[in-house]
Amino acid sequence: MSQTASVPSSSKPYSDLPPISVALFEAKARKGLTFDEVAKAIGRDEVWVAAVFYGQAKLAPEEIEALARVLDIPVVNIQSNLGTHWWPNRGLGPMPPTDPVLYRLYEGVLVYGHAIKAIIHEKFGDGIMSMIDCKVRVDKKPDPKGDRVVLTFDGKFLPYSKW
Amino acid sequence: MSQTASVPSSSKPYSDLPPISVALFEAKARKGLTFDEVAKAIGRDEVWVAAVFYGQAKLAPEEIEALARVLDIPVVNIQSNLGTHWWPNRGLGPMPPTDPVLYRLYEGVLVYGHAIKAIIHEKFGDGIMSMIDCKVRVDKKPDPKGDRVVLTFDGKFLPYSKW
Amino acid sequence: MSQTASVPSSSKPYSDLPPISVALFEAKARKGLTFDEVAKAIGRDEVWVAAVFYGQAKLAPEEIEALARVLDIPVVNIQSNLGTHWWPNRGLGPMPPTDPVLYRLYEGVLVYGHAIKAIIHEKFGDGIMSMIDCKVRVDKKPDPKGDRVVLTFDGKFLPYSKW
Amino acid sequence: MSQTASVPSSSKPYSDLPPISVALFEAKARKGLTFDEVAKAIGRDEVWVAAVFYGQAKLAPEEIEALARVLDIPVVNIQSNLGTHWWPNRGLGPMPPTDPVLYRLYEGVLVYGHAIKAIIHEKFGDGIMSMIDCKVRVDKKPDPKGDRVVLTFDGKFLPYSKW
Amino acid sequence: MSQTASVPSSSKPYSDLPPISVALFEAKARKGLTFDEVAKAIGRDEVWVAAVFYGQAKLAPEEIEALARVLDIPVVNIQSNLGTHWWPNRGLGPMPPTDPVLYRLYEGVLVYGHAIKAIIHEKFGDGIMSMIDCKVRVDKKPDPKGDRVVLTFDGKFLPYSKW
Amino acid sequence: MSQTASVPSSSKPYSDLPPISVALFEAKARKGLTFDEVAKAIGRDEVWVAAVFYGQAKLAPEEIEALARVLDIPVVNIQSNLGTHWWPNRGLGPMPPTDPVLYRLYEGVLVYGHAIKAIIHEKFGDGIMSMIDCKVRVDKKPDPKGDRVVLTFDGKFLPYSKW
Amino acid sequence: MSQTASVPSSSKPYSDLPPISVALFEAKARKGLTFDEVAKAIGRDEVWVAAVFYGQAKLAPEEIEALARVLDIPVVNIQSNLGTHWWPNRGLGPMPPTDPVLYRLYEGVLVYGHAIKAIIHEKFGDGIMSMIDCKVRVDKKPDPKGDRVVLTFDGKFLPYSKW
Amino acid sequence: MSQTASVPSSSKPYSDLPPISVALFEAKARKGLTFDEVAKAIGRDEVWVAAVFYGQAKLAPEEIEALARVLDIPVVNIQSNLGTHWWPNRGLGPMPPTDPVLYRLYEGVLVYGHAIKAIIHEKFGDGIMSMIDCKVRVDKKPDPKGDRVVLTFDGKFLPYSKW
Amino acid sequence: MSQTASVPSSSKPYSDLPPISVALFEAKARKGLTFDEVAKAIGRDEVWVAAVFYGQAKLAPEEIEALARVLDIPVVNIQSNLGTHWWPNRGLGPMPPTDPVLYRLYEGVLVYGHAIKAIIHEKFGDGIMSMIDCKVRVDKKPDPKGDRVVLTFDGKFLPYSKW
Amino acid sequence: MSQTASVPSSSKPYSDLPPISVALFEAKARKGLTFDEVAKAIGRDEVWVAAVFYGQAKLAPEEIEALARVLDIPVVNIQSNLGTHWWPNRGLGPMPPTDPVLYRLYEGVLVYGHAIKAIIHEKFGDGIMSMIDCKVRVDKKPDPKGDRVVLTFDGKFLPYSKW
Repeated sequence: MSQTASVPSSSKPYSDLPPISVALFEAKARKGLTFDEVAKAIGRDEVWVAAVFYGQAKLAPEEIEALARVLDIPVVNIQSNLGTHWWPNRGLGPMPPTDPVLYRLYEGVLVYGHAIKAIIHEKFGDGIMSMIDCKVRVDKKPDPKGDRVVLTFDGKFLPYSKW
Repeated sequence: MSQTASVPSSSKPYSDLPPISVALFEAKARKGLTFDEVAKAIGRDEVWVAAVFYGQAKLAPEEIEALARVLDIPVVNIQSNLGTHWWPNRGLGPMPPTDPVLYRLYEGVLVYGHAIKAIIHEKFGDGIMSMIDCKVRVDKKPDPKGDRVVLTFDGKFLPYSKW
Repeated sequence: MSQTASVPSSSKPYSDLPPISVALFEAKARKGLTFDEVAKAIGRDEVWVAAVFYGQAKLAPEEIEALARVLDIPVVNIQSNLGTHWWPNRGLGPMPPTDPVLYRLYEGVLVYGHAIKAIIHEKFGDGIMSMIDCKVRVDKKPDPKGDRVVLTFDGKFLPYSKW
Repeated sequence: MSQTASVPSSSKPYSDLPPISVALFEAKARKGLTFDEVAKAIGRDEVWVAAVFYGQAKLAPEEIEALARVLDIPVVNIQSNLGTHWWPNRGLGPMPPTDPVLYRLYEGVLVYGHAIKAIIHEKFGDGIMSMIDCKVRVDKKPDPKGDRVVLTFDGKFLPYSKW
Repeated sequence: MSQTASVPSSSKPYSDLPPISVALFEAKARKGLTFDEVAKAIGRDEVWVAAVFYGQAKLAPEEIEALARVLDIPVVNIQSNLGTHWWPNRGLGPMPPTDPVLYRLYEGVLVYGHAIKAIIHEKFGDGIMSMIDCKVRVDKKPDPKGDRVVLTFDGKFLPYSKW
Repeated sequence: MSQTASVPSSSKPYSDLPPISVALFEAKARKGLTFDEVAKAIGRDEVWVAAVFYGQAKLAPEEIEALARVLDIPVVNIQSNLGTHWWPNRGLGPMPPTDPVLYRLYEGVLVYGHAIKAIIHEKFGDGIMSMIDCKVRVDKKPDPKGDRVVLTFDGKFLPYSKW
Repeated sequence: MSQTASVPSSSKPYSDLPPISVALFEAKARKGLTFDEVAKAIGRDEVWVAAVFYGQAKLAPEEIEALARVLDIPVVNIQSNLGTHWWPNRGLGPMPPTDPVLYRLYEGVLVYGHAIKAIIHEKFGDGIMSMIDCKVRVDKKPDPKGDRVVLTFDGKFLPYSKW
Repeated sequence: MSQTASVPSSSKPYSDLPPISVALFEAKARKGLTFDEVAKAIGRDEVWVAAVFYGQAKLAPEEIEALARVLDIPVVNIQSNLGTHWWPNRGLGPMPPTDPVLYRLYEGVLVYGHAIKAIIHEKFGDGIMSMIDCKVRVDKKPDPKGDRVVLTFDGKFLPYSKW
Repeated sequence: MSQTASVPSSSKPYSDLPPISVALFEAKARKGLTFDEVAKAIGRDEVWVAAVFYGQAKLAPEEIEALARVLDIPVVNIQSNLGTHWWPNRGLGPMPPTDPVLYRLYEGVLVYGHAIKAIIHEKFGDGIMSMIDCKVRVDKKPDPKGDRVVLTFDGKFLPYSKW
Repeated sequence: MSQTASVPSSSKPYSDLPPISVALFEAKARKGLTFDEVAKAIGRDEVWVAAVFYGQAKLAPEEIEALARVLDIPVVNIQSNLGTHWWPNRGLGPMPPTDPVLYRLYEGVLVYGHAIKAIIHEKFGDGIMSMIDCKVRVDKKPDPKGDRVVLTFDGKFLPYSKW
């Protein structure tokens, strides 16, 4: 389904993003595509592709071409903005986040952070779960009492080096 | 395996916790138990039990008794401190956290927060993943390139009410 | 009553809102309508509709149509900005708020927060009042010593899950 | 029902309160009383009495006597600490609050603050809802889909003076 | 005396104000009027009128007309911007203020705040000096050792309600 | 009137003060004196004396003697703590203040700060109202609609030097 | 020496200054003048004149004329922007400053602040060094081991008033 | 002149200092010595010696001995606390400072920071005034209109290296 | 290799930089040059040249000419913007940085700061590593387990002066 | 060389550390050992061992034994405090750090952070320098113009995963 769509580029979080991001969002809305549909077209997962839209991940040249194709945007527009010379400057905006969806993630760190750390140390030793070599998924789990969001971080354990 | 163990009760994060928390940690260390072993003894998951140790969850009376038994602490000690009149005052300490394990969780919100929000909205509509009706797991996934931490939040989707 | 009206779109809080919000405010002022009158026209409560104007709630397609009708704005303008592809990025601006009306609400949390929490726990157990499944009302209660504002939050109690 | 009870006086929020507050909490727990039962004994509402326990309201001499009676504490202990020479130094602790119960109240300001302000102005004019001449109630409303918390602020409208 | 005058609308504090404020300041400068002269023309005090210029107070319809007359600005310009649909969003900018005039007021709170609170309680009981029903004056008191600024806040005492 | 009185020395704001301050407050309460009565006994104003109690002003040797006399405290106790070698380290605690009495003073700066600055400049030129050569008074003005607090800052104007 | 010069008016600290400041900087650069040369032309010291350029000091009418002359800018441009109706809104930008030159000044307060305060009190009594009646100089002191910056604040001592 | 003296070691800024600092302050007060007298006894300037008392500078072994002698403290007490194994952890406490003496120094950076930076660059080029190789003096300059504080920072210019 | 390239000048960190910086980045991208290639052309190291691009270092006149040549930009463009009248206003943006590359550097200070300070004092005495007379290198060290980044700060030790 | 040594355990940064850390520092001072000498005795580098002393790294059982031996502390003291049940809660204290040694490291991030990030991306692609698999060294490089500190971070490059 195709429709006119406009993204409020002077409002948060769009105002912190490169202008090309706004173009990507508007093209996706115009084409009526989900992130999953965009992701399939370039051979990636939906969360990673959404991260690209928010300027949090970097496309390879062939991914730029596939993205341009699925969104009907000239390749050169994406390439000249998000090409080899561009590197993500990652971040979210003011913290703590005020949007309730984002805040609940933050609250997960507040309430369960120490417990998660304790279990990681007990199971793996002194080290961390990498947020660089990490895959993030959001799944919908039907439940008669109300569907559930299953959010998974699958990150490599990195032991602290000694020297 | 049993050993003498002392927890630095005047240092972070212990200095923010009720004194009974320190006693729980020291008893667990003395008995040489893992959180999983403690959890099995009271019929709960290890992450939830670790949250109890950090003052982030509330025990039922029968859980207090089971915990006292497995840790060899008089029931009355736990009951008089964490009994019916006590309610968790949840939180972690100064934010952003400086410990790298905790920070990586926080960075997950920074880098993938907008992407996660976008996918939740696309799949569920306007609403949030509950952090109250939410289960948290930490699993170890063996991998020849280095074991992986799989951290899962399984929370009920709550749609925004309209009125 | 109809009149020319201009909203200072480069000043707080309008500068944080999508441009369509400014158009909604100006149309409402031009038509001389109250939030209650707008709300009745779309079958909702005034506080919820005001929240929509401030970008804090999401309209359904039929609400967009009703809103366009009552404000004499082309449907497509609202739809292309606040339609299916748009999701609220909720928040208020810098905290603590400096405006005295907002600050008094904040002071309510400061002064009565612990007392409210204590009563909720005593009456309901370990859990929270949902701010997602919550209805907010502002009523005027005439009083010879000075009219009173009655502000009501009616939110579902959510017990903490255990696992 | 009477029981031994201990309040973690070195932990938040008790560590910010006068020592007499800890004594009040422990006496209430020992006697197995609810805030409502304490409140009835001194002729006040439960939220106001809970505010007294957290150092956020001031008792009159006859209320001190009634409170001492119901809690079985010597009158002089309360009087010498919370008597005529003592005045509340109101506040909650670090903001934003991290405890989810408190945070949801804070989020109510974040998400609905502008809407509430707009409706107050529309119904009352330029002025505020007083948080000084204000009564706060927490009611339990049974609901088959889950009980609801009804939180009410009933505050006098104060118009801005001009001069 | 009339002169060309320009107010730096992209600099603090003007950049936080509605554009009409800049127009008011420039008109006042062009006409060479003091706040006192403007105030007399609309039947108000100079501090209150200055507050209007900074977006901190709301004009009545007849005050808008008087202000337009004395400043030689079309009534409709003020009305369409600061008319019935507009409500002040009060505040000053980042705190603590860095400008020394503003900082000294802030320092007055820092150094004498507790003393002022103590005297208010001793003379009036548990309650506050209203900043809503409050008149503010700035007077010049000649003194051979150097003229003195006499700043007066005349606010209603509001006793805390009990319920 | 004399009574036993205890000041919560581990709570705010007392925990930030020298221990001698707590002794002064308790002696004043024991003797049942107002700040005005203490002030008269040492030939000063009540606000200034309250500032001394909060560690915000420095006593001269003869004032120390008069204060010791009126409070029935050994001179040497005050002298060894607040004598010639001691200098106030002025301040109030975390800002913005959360106590409503203090916050209203702070709000006075937020709402009327720019207006006060504008009038000072118009009447005196480029410079400030000194908060060092400044006298502060709190007066009670009876009013049938409710007594009023009259708070006066009487500070020397200091013109900016040029060089 | 004359040259084309452009000041990055959308970057810090220029973006916080009135546009006329940018014009002053560019004119000074075009004319190839030092602050000392500009200062001599208007009969002031270089630090004070630099403060004027950064919007931190106010020119008298005759100084405006002299400045316009030495910079070859129309008098009316400076007058209409920095004339009688304009008053500095002093400040520096976010603190602590990140620029190393500014930070070292800030570090001087951090490291030697208490020592400077102690010596001022010992030599002058209870009071402050005025930053309003204060002259600031920056001198170059040749030294074989490396030239030295001599920064001098020459401020009036202001004793605390008592009342 | 010798007297009993007590320093409020649980109050700011003493509570941030090593206990030996409190002993130094009390010994100095007991002996009735000025910082200048102490400084002369160990062959240093008064500001540097005051910095030592506040834990901001490090004594050489022979300076420890001289200091012990002039203050009548056992050498070993100073040596075991501030000896070869101890290094200053420099700093002042929360910023911005609230004490007016300290704040005025801070305000000097706020108001004249950019001007000082501009003059340093003009006279010396791209680089900084060292706060490490820097001498600080506080002098009293008698003046009929009121004595003046002359505060001098004499720091080495360090040019930025290029590589 | 030459290509069209666009830098998102309204996004972080570019929005904090002088416009000429954006031109430098786009020219470098267009020419397909690495920082090392640009650096070689002007006789400097790549890290220092990258610092120039980010407005953190100052070019000498001959370096401006060499840079203009290698980037095919008119000399006058760079000269009029970054010439003799311009001085870097150094800094990075909000701290702590949210970008993971920058945060890891910050984390290096958090985790190893005290250890680095302790070793510097042990090896050099009381003083600092200069960040002004400091050279920074980033080298790639091939490693079969994954290439390594070797980041070196080579800064002059500056002993604290005494006086 | 052996001497009495006392570490100010109630001052920063010691007050944030486990008590055993204070014991380690005092033992090291008593024995007159450098970090390098301690490090050699347990087969590690001096920076890593200093990190252990500051609670930023975790000892293996055999390292605990070697450390106890070289410091003449009972093994059980270290083991019961820093043994298998203890995990570092890493961090430094308030940021930005005020101590000049620590601040210069922080300034390195401020001034050269973007340049370092740019070079890492150019040489390695999209990813980070690990601060977990990272070795830190502090070397002394003699130089006739003043010895130099050479600080090296040698961290594994971690490429961003895609999924």
